[in-house]
Order: sequence, then C-alpha cells, then structure tokens
Amino acid sequence: MNPIEKLSIDAIRILAAETVENAKSGHPGMAIGAAPIAYALWKHMRHNPGNAKWMGRDRFVLSAGHASALEYAMLHLYGYDVSMDDMKRFRQWDSNTPGHPEHGHTEGVEATTGPLGQGIAMAVGMALAETHLAAKYNMEGYRVFDNRTYALCGDGCLMEGVAYEAVSLAGTLKLNKLTLIYDRNCVTIEGSTELAFEENVAARFAACGWQVINVDDGNDVDAISRALRISDGMDKPSLIIVNTRIAYGTPKEGSNSAHGSPLGAENIAIMKANYGWEFDEPFTVPDEVYAHFRQLAASNAEANAAYDDMLRGYAATNGELYAQLMADMSGEVPAGLLEELEHMAFEGSVSTRSASGKALNLIAKRLPSLIGGSADLAPSNLTELSGYEYYSPQHRSGKNLHFGIREFAMAAVCNGMALYGGLRPFCATFLVFADYLKPALRLSALMKLPVMYVMTHDSIGVGEDGPTHQPIEQIAMLRATPGVKVFRPADGKETAAAYISALASDSPAVLALSRQNLPTYEATGIGALRGGYVLNRPKGDPDVVLLATGSEVELICKAADELAVRGYTAQVVSMPCAELFDEQDAAYRQSVIPPHIRARVAVEAGCGFGWHKYVGLDGEVVCIDRFGASAPAKTVFEKLSMTTQSVLEAALRTIRR
Amino acid sequence: MNPIEKLSIDAIRILAAETVENAKSGHPGMAIGAAPIAYALWKHMRHNPGNAKWMGRDRFVLSAGHASALEYAMLHLYGYDVSMDDMKRFRQWDSNTPGHPEHGHTEGVEATTGPLGQGIAMAVGMALAETHLAAKYNMEGYRVFDNRTYALCGDGCLMEGVAYEAVSLAGTLKLNKLTLIYDRNCVTIEGSTELAFEENVAARFAACGWQVINVDDGNDVDAISRALRISDGMDKPSLIIVNTRIAYGTPKEGSNSAHGSPLGAENIAIMKANYGWEFDEPFTVPDEVYAHFRQLAASNAEANAAYDDMLRGYAATNGELYAQLMADMSGEVPAGLLEELEHMAFEGSVSTRSASGKALNLIAKRLPSLIGGSADLAPSNLTELSGYEYYSPQHRSGKNLHFGIREFAMAAVCNGMALYGGLRPFCATFLVFADYLKPALRLSALMKLPVMYVMTHDSIGVGEDGPTHQPIEQIAMLRATPGVKVFRPADGKETAAAYISALASDSPAVLALSRQNLPTYEATGIGALRGGYVLNRPKGDPDVVLLATGSEVELICKAADELAVRGYTAQVVSMPCAELFDEQDAAYRQSVIPPHIRARVAVEAGCGFGWHKYVGLDGEVVCIDRFGASAPAKTVFEKLSMTTQSVLEAALRTIRR
Repeated sequence: MNPIEKLSIDAIRILAAETVENAKSGHPGMAIGAAPIAYALWKHMRHNPGNAKWMGRDRFVLSAGHASALEYAMLHLYGYDVSMDDMKRFRQWDSNTPGHPEHGHTEGVEATTGPLGQGIAMAVGMALAETHLAAKYNMEGYRVFDNRTYALCGDGCLMEGVAYEAVSLAGTLKLNKLTLIYDRNCVTIEGSTELAFEENVAARFAACGWQVINVDDGNDVDAISRALRISDGMDKPSLIIVNTRIAYGTPKEGSNSAHGSPLGAENIAIMKANYGWEFDEPFTVPDEVYAHFRQLAASNAEANAAYDDMLRGYAATNGELYAQLMADMSGEVPAGLLEELEHMAFEGSVSTRSASGKALNLIAKRLPSLIGGSADLAPSNLTELSGYEYYSPQHRSGKNLHFGIREFAMAAVCNGMALYGGLRPFCATFLVFADYLKPALRLSALMKLPVMYVMTHDSIGVGEDGPTHQPIEQIAMLRATPGVKVFRPADGKETAAAYISALASDSPAVLALSRQNLPTYEATGIGALRGGYVLNRPKGDPDVVLLATGSEVELICKAADELAVRGYTAQVVSMPCAELFDEQDAAYRQSVIPPHIRARVAVEAGCGFGWHKYVGLDGEVVCIDRFGASAPAKTVFEKLSMTTQSVLEAALRTIRR
Repeated sequence: MNPIEKLSIDAIRILAAETVENAKSGHPGMAIGAAPIAYALWKHMRHNPGNAKWMGRDRFVLSAGHASALEYAMLHLYGYDVSMDDMKRFRQWDSNTPGHPEHGHTEGVEATTGPLGQGIAMAVGMALAETHLAAKYNMEGYRVFDNRTYALCGDGCLMEGVAYEAVSLAGTLKLNKLTLIYDRNCVTIEGSTELAFEENVAARFAACGWQVINVDDGNDVDAISRALRISDGMDKPSLIIVNTRIAYGTPKEGSNSAHGSPLGAENIAIMKANYGWEFDEPFTVPDEVYAHFRQLAASNAEANAAYDDMLRGYAATNGELYAQLMADMSGEVPAGLLEELEHMAFEGSVSTRSASGKALNLIAKRLPSLIGGSADLAPSNLTELSGYEYYSPQHRSGKNLHFGIREFAMAAVCNGMALYGGLRPFCATFLVFADYLKPALRLSALMKLPVMYVMTHDSIGVGEDGPTHQPIEQIAMLRATPGVKVFRPADGKETAAAYISALASDSPAVLALSRQNLPTYEATGIGALRGGYVLNRPKGDPDVVLLATGSEVELICKAADELAVRGYTAQVVSMPCAELFDEQDAAYRQSVIPPHIRARVAVEAGCGFGWHKYVGLDGEVVCIDRFGASAPAKTVFEKLSMTTQSVLEAALRTIRR
C-alpha cells in the first residue's frame, strides 16, 4: 500500500465512522473493515462519476446494505452527487443518504439493499442481463455491452437461502462476468460465525461451478486488485474471499459490538491515533485524497468518451439495431402493442393462464426486451415464449429462462435484470408460492421496477393438489403491499387488459390466473383498466351491488340472474384490480359502487381480508377464511360454499338488512 | 434383490401408479422410481404400525410431498390406518389420502409437505429436537431418545434456498442422526436438471459438513440398505444420493412427462408386463406381499415393546425426570405459569420487545420445554434466555439457539421441533423479515403447531434503518393467514397476555413488538385475552370509537383527551389481536364497538388493509399506505402523519359525517 493509498483508505474508514457517529445510528464495523476492498474495487471498476448512467459502466451492488456509509463515502470521494453535507445528514429525513442504499434515490446506487442475500441475486440478474444484451446487440468491433457486475457481501448474505439459489443458478449459467466479493470478517450480530456458520464457503461455491480466489489479508490492496484481475479472465463466476477485521484499527476491532452501533467519540479518537490521522475535525478529507480520487475518475471519463465514440460508430453502421437498442433502453412499449392486446379475441371457455400465455407470446413478438420464465412450472404456468430459444451458456440470446425451483432468486434476478436496463422481465410460479418470493416482490415495489409476476393456479380451483397448493391469503398479502398492482382477471379480455396496464406501468404487477377454464363475458374488456367496472348497467338504483374478481365473476353474474327472477336488481361489478379502482376519481368510483347502496356483496375464492373496504359493515363477503382441501376443483368450490347459492343468499340478506 | 423384495417393490410401484391413475390426478413418476428407496428405508427404520405415535420411532419426512402416493402405499402395506379404500379415494374430498401428505390428517404422516425444501428443514428440526431431548432426558442405560430422522427429497427440494439454509445449519450443528436421501432422477417439470441445476450436490453437502454416500443404481436395494447402515455410524449428517429413473419400467421412464400426470391405462399395462406382474385387476396386492410387510412390522412391534419396558424402568428409577418428560410431551403449560405472566409488573416507559424478553425469561424458568432463538438478532429481539446455555454440538441441552441469518429455515426448523414433540419452540427476527419466513409460518398454521414468532421492530418506529427494515404490509399479511393469531400489544401487560394466549393455544402466534419505549397503561391487562377491549368506559353512548394496536394506543388515548376538551366522548379500544376479538360472542363485540356508532377510527402504523372490517364505510383508518423512510423514528411518525393530530382530525370528520 503506497502512501496515497493508505491515506485514501484511512479517509474512507474515518469518513464512514464519522458519518455513523454523527447520525448516532448505523453500522460502522464492516464499512471500516471493508474499506480496502472498496478502494481496490472502485479503482478496478469502469464507472464515471460524471455520467452515473453510462450504459457501459460496471455495476456494483452492496449486498451488505447495512454498510451504506462505505458506499456513500465512495460516492462522495469519487465526486458523485453525494456531498459532504449529505454525509452529515446520513439517516435523516429526506436526505440523500438513507440508512440502507436506495436505488433511484441516490445517484450511483445500483440497487436497494438491506434485506440480506437479495443483493447477490440482483447482481446475478444484472450479469445475466449483460450476457443477454451482449449476445443480442454486440457486433464485431462494437462491444456495446461488455461490463462486469460486482457485489460485495458479508456472512449474512451468504447464509440466506436466496443467495444460494442465485449462486447455483449463476454457476449453471456460467455467468463469467460476475464477481462476488465476500468480506469475511467472521462476525455477525450474535457473535463469531463459528456459532452458526461453519461450512466451507469456498468449497460450496466451487461445487456450484464458481472460481474461488482467496485474499488472506483484507488490508492488502495489491492482493485484492490482483484477485479482481484474475476474476476478469475466468470462464465462470468468481468469488473473492477477503479475510478482513471488522472495525479494523479501532478498540472494537474483531468484535460484534462494532456491527450496528456508532463507535463512540473516544474510540474514533483512538482509531485516528492508530491510523496516524492528523485531523481532529470530523468530516475532514485531505485535499490530496480528493485529488487522488478525481484523478481515478478522470481515467474513467476517458473510457466513457471512448465508449461513446464506439457507440456512435455502432449507430452509423448498425442503424436498425441501434434504434432497437435505444427503444429497449427507454423502456417504452412499441406503438400498437397495447392496441393489439386490446383487440385480442377470446371466446368460449378459456383459463386465464391460457389467455396469459397467448398475451405473453404476442408481447414477445412486439416487445424485443421481454425476457422471463418460470420456477420450473412453465408447462403449468403456460409462460413459454414459443419460437424463442431458452437462454443457456450456449444461447445467451434466448428469451426463455429456466429459473429452476428457486422462486425467491427468480424474482430477485428479475429485479436485477430490470435494474440493468433494456429488459422487461417476467417470472412465473403458482400463486401460493408468492410466499416464497414475497421479499423480492417487495423490493420490486420499493424500487418501482416493472417486473411482471405471472401467478397461475390462483385459488382452490387448483383442486387435488390440496391446501399446500391452494392460495388463500396470498392475494390479500400482495394487495396489502404498497406499489404493487394485483390483477385477478375474469376472462381472456381482462387478462389482456392486465398486461396492457402492466406494460404501461413503472411498477410491479401481479397477475393471478386461473388453472380452470372460465367463460368469456360479453361486457368485459378495457373497462378493466379502471380496476373495477360495471358489467351490466341496471336502470335506476340497483337493490344490491355484487363485486367479484376472476373466476367468481361467473358466480355474481349467475346470482344476478337468480335475483332478477326474484324481482331484485343487482349491479354486477368486475374488480380485476382494486388498486387501479382506488386510483379512479370519486365520481367514477361512485358510479360503480353507488355510495347510498349499502347492500353489497364481495365474492372471491380467497380470504375475505380487505374486502370490507368496499362492502362496509352492512355488506357481506363470500370468501374462504380457512385453508383449502384436496379434491377435484368443482367439489372444493361446492364444499367451501363458493357457489351461486351462497352469493344469492348473502345478497338477499344484505337487501333485507 | 430376492423374489419377495422384487414382488414387494413392484407392488409399491404399481399401487402408487394405480392410485394416481384412479384419481386421474397426481404424481406417479417419483413414486415409481423411488419405490426401492422407500422399501429399503421403511425396512431399516424403527417404526410401529400398531403404535404410530411411539415416542422412540424414527421419523420420516417425505420432503418431495408430491410423491404422496408412495408414502400412502407404504403406510397401507405396513398396516397403518390407510386402507385400500383410502387408496381408491386418493385426492378426493375428505379422504385419508389427500394430494400432498398432511400431518394430523393421515396416521403415520409426520409432516405436511408439498411446498418444496421445507421438508428437509423440518427434518433438521426433528433431528435437532432428538439430540436436545436425549441430552436432557437420557440416563445411563435408558436411551429414551435415540431415534434417527430421515427425509426423502428430489431435485426440487435441493434447489430451494430453505433447504440449503437448513443443510448449512445441520452441518454446523453436526446433527449425526439425520439422513437425507436424494432421489436423483435428473428430471424436473421443465426437463433435465442440466437446464437449471448443474451444481455438484455431493461436493456442496460435503462443504456444509455432511457425509455423502452414493448409490449408483436406484434399484439396488442392498446398496441402499448398506448406505443407510453406513449413515447410522456417522458423526455428522448424511446425504445418500440414489441415482434413480423416474417412472422406472414404464414407457415414460426418464421423461418429465411422468412427473405430474397419470401414466394412462395403456402405459400401466405395459409397466405390468415389463415387471412380470400377473394381476390385471387394479389395486391388487398379492398375499405374500402383505405377509412380508406384516412380518417386517412385527419385528418393529417387538422393538416397541422393548422400548416400553425400558421406559417403565426409567420411570421407576428416574421418577422426577419421567414426570417432567411426560409433562413436556403433553404440551401442557405448568400450573401457575399463566397466572405468573398475568401478574408480571410493568411500569413507566418500556418497549414491548423488552417486556417480551422478560416474559420469555419467566416462561423459560417454568416451562422446561421452551427452546428457541433468533436469526442472528437476539441482542435486538431481546430473546436470549439468560442463565441457559446455547445449543451446540458440545452442549446439546442448550435452550438458546443460534439459527444464523436464515429466517426461513429457522421457522421450518421450529415446525420440525414442534412436530417431534416435547418442545415449545419460538423464533425471532425483525417483523419486516416475516416476509422471509412466511412459507414456513403458513405450514405452522396448516399443521396447527404452536410455534411462537417473536417479531420485533414492528413499524416505522424502526427509524433510521429505513424502508427496507420498516414493516408496512406484514401485519396484514399475517392477519390474512388462516389459523394464525397476530398480537400487537400496547404495553408490557398486553405483551404478557399475548404470551398467555400463545401458550394456551395449539396454533402459531405472532408477537409484533416495538423497538421503541411505550407507556404502561392503567387499564390494560388480561382484557387483552379477548383480543379487543375498552380501555376507558364512557358513560352512555360515545361519539366516536377509537381503535388501535401497539404503539398507536398512545395516539388514541391522547386523541380521546383532545376530543374531551372539545366536548366529545371517545370509546378507546385496544385491539391487540383481531383474530381473538372476532372469536368473541356478538354481545361482547358489540359492547366494545357499539354497532350503531358509525363514527369510528382505526389507527395503526402499518398499512390500513383489513381495518374497514371494523370501521366500515363511514369510519376512517389512520395508517401508512406507502413504504416508510429513513430518519429518526419520531420524525418518521410525524412526517407520515402518525400523530395525535391526525387521529383527532379523523375522529372529528367521522363525528361530523
């Protein structure tokens, strides 16, 4: 380590420690211990503080998001839009430097992290995206996509199952431009990693098809740099294990007490003395350190300029491809696709999963950026894009993905692909297994990533597979999550409308789709884009408002007929997306559910949780507030009283109330 | 394979295939291919069809739950309570043989499986439980606990992150009495495992501290039996990899089409011809096969009798321990514990996580079966049982568990411990990470296992850690799940009440607990056991009913004071557990929330989803229908309008409506 390197690394460590100290909150230990890794890595990476969105940049994910002070220190020192004032406002309201890194909030932060393990899986998604786009767009002499993806993690990320899933997938897919750096400080919150994590991480990664490179001394910047260069040349993903000391050079070095609390002013003073740091004043960075980082940034700016030249040449010689590339990167939907979806023809008895399969295949033809697949359920989810290859090490341009039986990593990998840019990812599994991927779906919503979740087998209609495979509470769980649009279409036309809405949106969408066939309704269609709409329009005030989603729209239609026989008028409302309905203006909402009609029944083959928002205290919810059961679907519907008769009786009760 | 072995295995394969065929639904492929494994294993295992609940039995978990026809075939042939009529009613309403194995429903089924990966983690929990109880209860000459746990899985389970988490934990804990058998048929639903699962499973398990034993030919019963005997002698957990052929001996052998659909009558005919099976009539089992299995069962009955003798000797010589053991196995709560909890004293400003820590420590002293820990957050969850050792290979009697940063496996392991018997497990993490363990909590509920989930940091009160760490929708997600009681106590007394309810229950309970200090209320207490109760009792009709949980009870109390100043009367309702409240009779519920008072406000620092059930169309919900933000907790509460002022304004609006 030469003097300017040492001074720079000391500056990173002290700035991170002081940032936490000043906020009286945060995680100094790893930020201090991993500073040499960050120094070596950011020097090694291709990135340009003057153009944080440079398409050719290397990607960095701080999977150990609690070490945010380290990332902010690097962003600040390199001259990204993180000022020293921002550092002083660490973890304060509306600051640029929240407790965990937030993508879309702080320039240079490539992913929102904090929920452990997911950063690794998102990095896998980014590396996958790069290989795919490179196969699709690179031409001889024009390496439009040619970047590496780096993730930095601690023991915590590696213990999480989602990280293992992603690691196994990355090994299978031979994602050679992916490097994971493991800050091995052997300390977690409860103490030494020996207590709960005795496995041989290196051997485990090797077993998963990764190259493993060891760095014995986490303060040896040259060794870390060497390891990074070695990983560049590998034909498989690399894990660099760096043995570090948490809170290096402080009185809390090596202790779990350094993980999640400020060090204390006294310890920072000792730390400074140990480092030979001359500045008592907090938030001091020597000029030569700034100068050093700006110099490193300058060479990156040159690389960016060269890239831009290359891209201009590419545009000139490959005009069509370039136009397509720009369209993909814009995230815009091609003219006409939404109209085509709107005019998709469905008739007779069709399951919405089958309608979804048709819609997806139409989208695949018109939207080159579509990519996705299932967690080993493609033949059931009906998500295969026919006529397109499956992605593999031999066929990087494939749009169909085999995610394996890894729901959580699947969703996190889709987040990574969406973050990378140029792709519209979708993923698929049974709705009940939304449980397995929920933590990644939450990050889709938090980052506003338009990932499409195709969730088939959406109710007890699953039938024989029984309660472990029949979703009950999943739709409520998803609706409760902020920023997610949940669609449960009643037929093919509403399914197409759900895709229209999802494609036009910048937030994640869930499509809950039936296994069983459903009728095609005359009155359905793009009314579905308002979330809830009236399928019949009775003259005058109805006696009762019937609301349903998905397969239960059939029940309310039939119940309305039965009510008519009895002289009552029902307003039949299909409510494929409650979130969209809530976004409509009051006048529209009141036209769908007249405020003064309190006789209301909501019907859904799932738990009733949440429906009283629409039916109130005087209405009823026909639903399933228990687990399902194994039997043919029709039997389960009958036995659990999801029948026209139940709806009719509930309607009559509310009318007479 | 001698003739009776061959005949028996053929009988298993054909019975399983015919069971699926008859139901016109199910998964024949693995059931057929893994039949020799099942044959060898059930012969090797200590289990008694005449006494399915024998405390000394080996445990078997079919982690690949879709192969249920195989398990039912074994149960039937051995003489458990699964008749041939039951086999014929496979996957039908109310039958004994549902689509996936259901614990508590079918005799001999040790765990509900189907959601992949979790069976492995539950088996880890069972093996952990055995070592713990053995350390606690065994005396020289009396091996009261001395059984092995076996799990059978396919590729799917191994790809799931939860299985990896559990495998890593089992290796760290050196659970030598655990054997996982991997039916390696190299086929998943989408095709060959090469597509998505190229890792070296043997090397990965070895890296995690497991012994790996290979069986080249899945039809070689002797080799499988040998492998089982080898695994018996290991000082670490074992993985037996058995290379099989899916749907062996049928025209669909080796094909993914054999996974999840009946073979078809023609293929079954060919299968019978290939096996040399003489019986055209479906559901035929030769007498000599029944006789063979009954003979195998008989030796098990002898072992059971010997065990019973041993246990009588134990009772005679270790009376106190025996009494304690019986109490533990009964699951009953010791006399006086609930009263002690009721009389726990709290005063002043106390976080409910801290109150929970005190309650847990009191319970630990009185309830010897309590065992649990955190996913590396014990110092934050305050779940350490002080004065008790941590469980480790050296200290198997420890009651404190280091689960590592593995939320999902933690919960599934707790399910396994609860299934084993004799233990009351709890687990802990931040509430926001309920997302990570939700699939296992669902199985707790489905199996009615009284696992206690201690979830601290229950709102934006988390503060600086920001939106990734602030739960919003989690409480709604948990409330929506059938069979789960969700408590969000307002103070220490309500926290103690939550534990009273959880201990007295046979279903899982979630305790959502505050990070920040909360006041102790005069009127709180065991009224909380009714789920919702009135903290003040205004004379006559109130003008408005204010409902809240947890930290927001303070807001409604203050708002009530403000309303009083303005001449309005508010009924203040603490609602620590909506599920319990809903179970009360109508008269009680109406005394808490008078039906004719429609001015109602519910307040909770989480999403409002679900609250309209109590406030209706004319009430209001003061809540947070967005993600949180990083800032000191007090600031976040203010900025997101979780204030007395917001409640007051909402109350006034509803009163004036």
